[in-house]
Amino acid sequence: MRKVCVVVGSRANYSSIKSVMRAVDRHPDLELQVVAAASAILGRYGAVVTHIEQDGFRIAARLHMLVEGETPATMVQSTGMGLVELPVVFDQLRPDIVVTVGDRFETMATAVAAAYMNITLAHTMGGEISGTIDESIRHAVTKFAHVHFPACEQARERIVRLGERPEHVHLVGCPRIDLVAEILQDALPLRNDLFGTGVGGRFDIDGEFLLVSQHPVTTEYGSGRDQILATLQAVEQVGLPAIILWPNADAGSEDIAAGMRWFREHRDESRLHFFKNLPTDVYVRLMARAACLVGNSSSGIREGAFIGTPAVNIGTRQMNRQRGPNVVDVDYDADAIAGAIDAQRRHGRYDRQPIYGDGCAGPRVADILAVTSPPLQKVLTF
Amino acid sequence: MRKVCVVVGSRANYSSIKSVMRAVDRHPDLELQVVAAASAILGRYGAVVTHIEQDGFRIAARLHMLVEGETPATMVQSTGMGLVELPVVFDQLRPDIVVTVGDRFETMATAVAAAYMNITLAHTMGGEISGTIDESIRHAVTKFAHVHFPACEQARERIVRLGERPEHVHLVGCPRIDLVAEILQDALPLRNDLFGTGVGGRFDIDGEFLLVSQHPVTTEYGSGRDQILATLQAVEQVGLPAIILWPNADAGSEDIAAGMRWFREHRDESRLHFFKNLPTDVYVRLMARAACLVGNSSSGIREGAFIGTPAVNIGTRQMNRQRGPNVVDVDYDADAIAGAIDAQRRHGRYDRQPIYGDGCAGPRVADILAVTSPPLQKVLTF
Amino acid sequence: MRKVCVVVGSRANYSSIKSVMRAVDRHPDLELQVVAAASAILGRYGAVVTHIEQDGFRIAARLHMLVEGETPATMVQSTGMGLVELPVVFDQLRPDIVVTVGDRFETMATAVAAAYMNITLAHTMGGEISGTIDESIRHAVTKFAHVHFPACEQARERIVRLGERPEHVHLVGCPRIDLVAEILQDALPLRNDLFGTGVGGRFDIDGEFLLVSQHPVTTEYGSGRDQILATLQAVEQVGLPAIILWPNADAGSEDIAAGMRWFREHRDESRLHFFKNLPTDVYVRLMARAACLVGNSSSGIREGAFIGTPAVNIGTRQMNRQRGPNVVDVDYDADAIAGAIDAQRRHGRYDRQPIYGDGCAGPRVADILAVTSPPLQKVLTF
Amino acid sequence: MRKVCVVVGSRANYSSIKSVMRAVDRHPDLELQVVAAASAILGRYGAVVTHIEQDGFRIAARLHMLVEGETPATMVQSTGMGLVELPVVFDQLRPDIVVTVGDRFETMATAVAAAYMNITLAHTMGGEISGTIDESIRHAVTKFAHVHFPACEQARERIVRLGERPEHVHLVGCPRIDLVAEILQDALPLRNDLFGTGVGGRFDIDGEFLLVSQHPVTTEYGSGRDQILATLQAVEQVGLPAIILWPNADAGSEDIAAGMRWFREHRDESRLHFFKNLPTDVYVRLMARAACLVGNSSSGIREGAFIGTPAVNIGTRQMNRQRGPNVVDVDYDADAIAGAIDAQRRHGRYDRQPIYGDGCAGPRVADILAVTSPPLQKVLTF
Repeated sequence: MRKVCVVVGSRANYSSIKSVMRAVDRHPDLELQVVAAASAILGRYGAVVTHIEQDGFRIAARLHMLVEGETPATMVQSTGMGLVELPVVFDQLRPDIVVTVGDRFETMATAVAAAYMNITLAHTMGGEISGTIDESIRHAVTKFAHVHFPACEQARERIVRLGERPEHVHLVGCPRIDLVAEILQDALPLRNDLFGTGVGGRFDIDGEFLLVSQHPVTTEYGSGRDQILATLQAVEQVGLPAIILWPNADAGSEDIAAGMRWFREHRDESRLHFFKNLPTDVYVRLMARAACLVGNSSSGIREGAFIGTPAVNIGTRQMNRQRGPNVVDVDYDADAIAGAIDAQRRHGRYDRQPIYGDGCAGPRVADILAVTSPPLQKVLTF
Repeated sequence: MRKVCVVVGSRANYSSIKSVMRAVDRHPDLELQVVAAASAILGRYGAVVTHIEQDGFRIAARLHMLVEGETPATMVQSTGMGLVELPVVFDQLRPDIVVTVGDRFETMATAVAAAYMNITLAHTMGGEISGTIDESIRHAVTKFAHVHFPACEQARERIVRLGERPEHVHLVGCPRIDLVAEILQDALPLRNDLFGTGVGGRFDIDGEFLLVSQHPVTTEYGSGRDQILATLQAVEQVGLPAIILWPNADAGSEDIAAGMRWFREHRDESRLHFFKNLPTDVYVRLMARAACLVGNSSSGIREGAFIGTPAVNIGTRQMNRQRGPNVVDVDYDADAIAGAIDAQRRHGRYDRQPIYGDGCAGPRVADILAVTSPPLQKVLTF
Repeated sequence: MRKVCVVVGSRANYSSIKSVMRAVDRHPDLELQVVAAASAILGRYGAVVTHIEQDGFRIAARLHMLVEGETPATMVQSTGMGLVELPVVFDQLRPDIVVTVGDRFETMATAVAAAYMNITLAHTMGGEISGTIDESIRHAVTKFAHVHFPACEQARERIVRLGERPEHVHLVGCPRIDLVAEILQDALPLRNDLFGTGVGGRFDIDGEFLLVSQHPVTTEYGSGRDQILATLQAVEQVGLPAIILWPNADAGSEDIAAGMRWFREHRDESRLHFFKNLPTDVYVRLMARAACLVGNSSSGIREGAFIGTPAVNIGTRQMNRQRGPNVVDVDYDADAIAGAIDAQRRHGRYDRQPIYGDGCAGPRVADILAVTSPPLQKVLTF
Repeated sequence: MRKVCVVVGSRANYSSIKSVMRAVDRHPDLELQVVAAASAILGRYGAVVTHIEQDGFRIAARLHMLVEGETPATMVQSTGMGLVELPVVFDQLRPDIVVTVGDRFETMATAVAAAYMNITLAHTMGGEISGTIDESIRHAVTKFAHVHFPACEQARERIVRLGERPEHVHLVGCPRIDLVAEILQDALPLRNDLFGTGVGGRFDIDGEFLLVSQHPVTTEYGSGRDQILATLQAVEQVGLPAIILWPNADAGSEDIAAGMRWFREHRDESRLHFFKNLPTDVYVRLMARAACLVGNSSSGIREGAFIGTPAVNIGTRQMNRQRGPNVVDVDYDADAIAGAIDAQRRHGRYDRQPIYGDGCAGPRVADILAVTSPPLQKVLTF
């Protein structure tokens, strides 16, 4: 019975790995161990750990590791905290395989801890290209990982070009799309009490509205306030009501939050509704209805391609990520953003593009984890 | 005036970067900042920090970061300690460029700290191939570094193939060879009182003798005691006196040390002399005289090629590293090791092979650091 | 020239030590070193570090040390972070004396770091009695401190009874009162734009109003939401407008904040105005006008005695602290709180009680620090 | 079923708490949880964790927390590591009571972690007086502890005078004496192969010999080498063979070790035998035979009183500890030490003095832990 330990470090992480966790949990030859860490256990970021437990998973350990400040320096120190704590937990759980997700700074702690401790490291969502420090983290994790689960063909090719053995690089699709497919399948309506949480105005979500999700760009630390203000001004110009999500716990999120607070206090906020975070199913249903998704969330590109949501992607955060026709790219400029939103409104919804998978990534990953035996000693292929 | 911060984490690190530090220190457009960390400040590992100061460098900060234990888990936690402490120091020194050396676990802490903090990261000795976790660390650091200083042509090619922009990959040669060239130039004799430090027997170093330097292989954690015992048995079989160096502070070094202690207590140690560590100039002069260098130190391959020292390289630690004809590879087997040593004795010294540089790497690195401006936002070239 | 290092860990800390810092800075035989740490450097808690700099002090080092979560566990881990980072800074600053303030959890880190490193430790505001874990921390710090500066006579006696040598226990008064005396001296009006920051309703502060400041009780972790809701209900019953302060960064502050948010979203908040924090001078002037100070802040007892503010002190947090007649104690009960507020309104302002000093503590502390030489080796007097 | 968690941080710790662990383990109403931390899990300090397991205890968690360096700064940082890791473990084990032992720096980490996390803290061996930073640590831990188990009457009185409630201060005797009594009861001979481990000469232990155990004094950091050299010169002058123990892992132990190594390399070591550590039973039997115990170990005072061993106590480390007539105190001076040893040889063995208990401390502690319910909120009694 192989023990597979998944380290979940944020609510985004959980959406990205939930279908894998479920498949591992149900697999006869695998035992699932869940470690909830970093913002995944913090109320300030929606404490996704409670959702994980409601979904029926047992939490093997909870690790506080975020050092307050959300500066580049604390991002480093938070990684350091993870590296001090994770060995204590791995020493108790003794997993055969550790799964790390994507490219956040906590991902790095998980990767270093597992690889240094001679535990087989599996990595999902590697090989993609984007902006911010995530770009470096993602490929550095690839250099530590023993088995790779890229989400799209371009990513698979890149991992191989990075010197990884092709037989350990498995194109499985994106596990996030598994959830999207499932949610869209049952024709449930959006929950009635959508505006029962969060703060701000209420409006009719059967009408036209915008969905805004914008996160800090760590390599542009200090500019977050101006960046979100440009976006909010564009939203004001366009004149549609909007649902606005709070930023991730990255260096610079305090700047984004400050911009949001300034806007709420100084401008008309009656048609804006702010959420700290939303359950994935609600978010997906909103993506399926929104006139346009605005910001720099990867969801516009990944889930957007599958759902067909018109998206206006702002700035460098998703730079070079493989994308379908549903995405229009613009700079941090209120007029440009407003113009792009209007163009997307005129176009309307797009056809499904399965660039990031067909909705069956989770079981594929579990089946491979049950049998794969990559050598612990890695060697470049060139 | 650009501030260049060099983080020295071990005595091996210092030999690998000393000529760069000197060239930066003398460069009119650069200011040198030296951070001494990890085993570089510990008496148990020879406290190379005192040599650094004797060489005329000022130490800007000293960081204790090694968690005792020398297990894979403490290697992780030591990296974590580095990540908690380095931001405090970088915040005070505010370097423009941070230089990290090679592939030890502390290297990873320096790389993550600088890259996350949006400080330009320069990396020396990247792109090489070897065994142990160093192999993964080295390439992961490459994915964080903004400017690269490979030591040999194969390494330069590999860094470019890893997706780094060729214009930021500078083939400069190995800075260790700078020191070797300098030491060999002045025809000084070996110091008279060689055996005044260390423990064990004394012998005539004008006669034939062996030099043994063997370190733990982190990915073979737990086997170190058997590995060093095979080597010491081979040395006993060959029948030559030997100078034996203490292992590095890696996971598993306690096993190597235990093997050495067992041998000393149970076998004839009268012709063995053990050193915790040796000044680089003494070590180089010994390499220039030894009948054979035995073990798994990279010096047999790098410095050995330049000096022409016959070397018997044992096991996987230097796997795939570019090497000249002076190196014979064998497994952890006493008979095989003894046989290879005898073959090398019959061959005698080799001709110089400048695979790892011509002795001018330091000034080249400094000149480039004074003018280079790679973008902070990295992007794969493919 | 003695180097005196003051570690400021929160905005409350700064008010408690500012007059000492000023006196040390001006003293001809002392050199001041300021380390800003923990919530003192975080925007979320008002970043008092910027006020420190505006007041003309140079910051020698900034230490992020708060681990997010505000649970008892993260309070421990934050102390741990401080203990990892402070030696790096003390090693660079090499202070002769370290000054630590009061009884917060960061205080413990400063005390342990200085005492273990054989640096003379001075402690202000020791010897008092209160509830929460602060009670244990305060006396534990006394056991590490080499020189003591209690704020009131009862506290001085207690420190001596705890086994400290009387010649190193100096009754100087409370440095917070120095600031209060100074602020009340100049008859400046309250700033006009008081309601320009913070959120909530506006009202006439020349009329009758309440001032509410309530913090979590760490030893009653988990009850904070109910506790603040009782207070807010009482405020609602009394019917006066109120200025309400955000809680400190202690374990449980998230619960207090949650209670505040619930109230704002579900009850009439038009006559409540919420501040993350207020400059000390504004707070003191508000205390001089408020009909009643409500909550569990020590300011009701300390500054309240000097200013004559009617105070309703709720629950156990200030249990047993020496107090004057201006304080009425009640339990966490909305009716009891409302009743006590009404009683205080009927009584009106109180006469000055100089229990906590006469406004000259700072210079007294500096003069003693310049000459005192307590032995590093402490010994109980019994 | 109350869960009682004992944190063992060194081999000395284990001897001090073993009889309590056994009694808790056997108690019908208690469940024992053992955390092995710091030097207790390190081979370099004898890895007492393996003895703990051989004695039949299950280890719930192992925590690496010693930062290498053995300086005052690393003593601080090691405490910090403990504070980062212990909450992870307490969060998983959820003990009702945490037991911390004595006065080492790790003790502080355990005390702070438990007290801040609102876990009842029990403390053994508090209330005594000694030199070094241990003096401050011991009393600071008392200020955090909810229930106290002093070893002697003077200690009990002191704890009460420190303001602790008498009903929670239980005079039980020293658990170390439990082991001594047990060992002396069975008339087993010393193991035959005593000199089979350790290094150095062999001699007849039925003849007259000395036992030397000397540790660093943290508040005299930097003097350890001279201090141990004075002792070793005195041993040389006296002319008896000697068994010498390696120092504890405190700041300064590297200095003591350096002095020992210098002596071994430069003086006649043929009648000295050095041990990294000795099993408690062997050590006790040696105390029962040695002509004199020399150094600054507390065992000369505690166990010495019970066993009747003549002891020469050097320097300040045991300053003011309650002692019987078997102890002669001297300064760090070779002649004075030699003179005192000769005087003790002339006197010979002493009568038993049960100052530190009667050998039944363990069961008493367990019985009290099973029923005691001290309030979490501590309050000074004055």
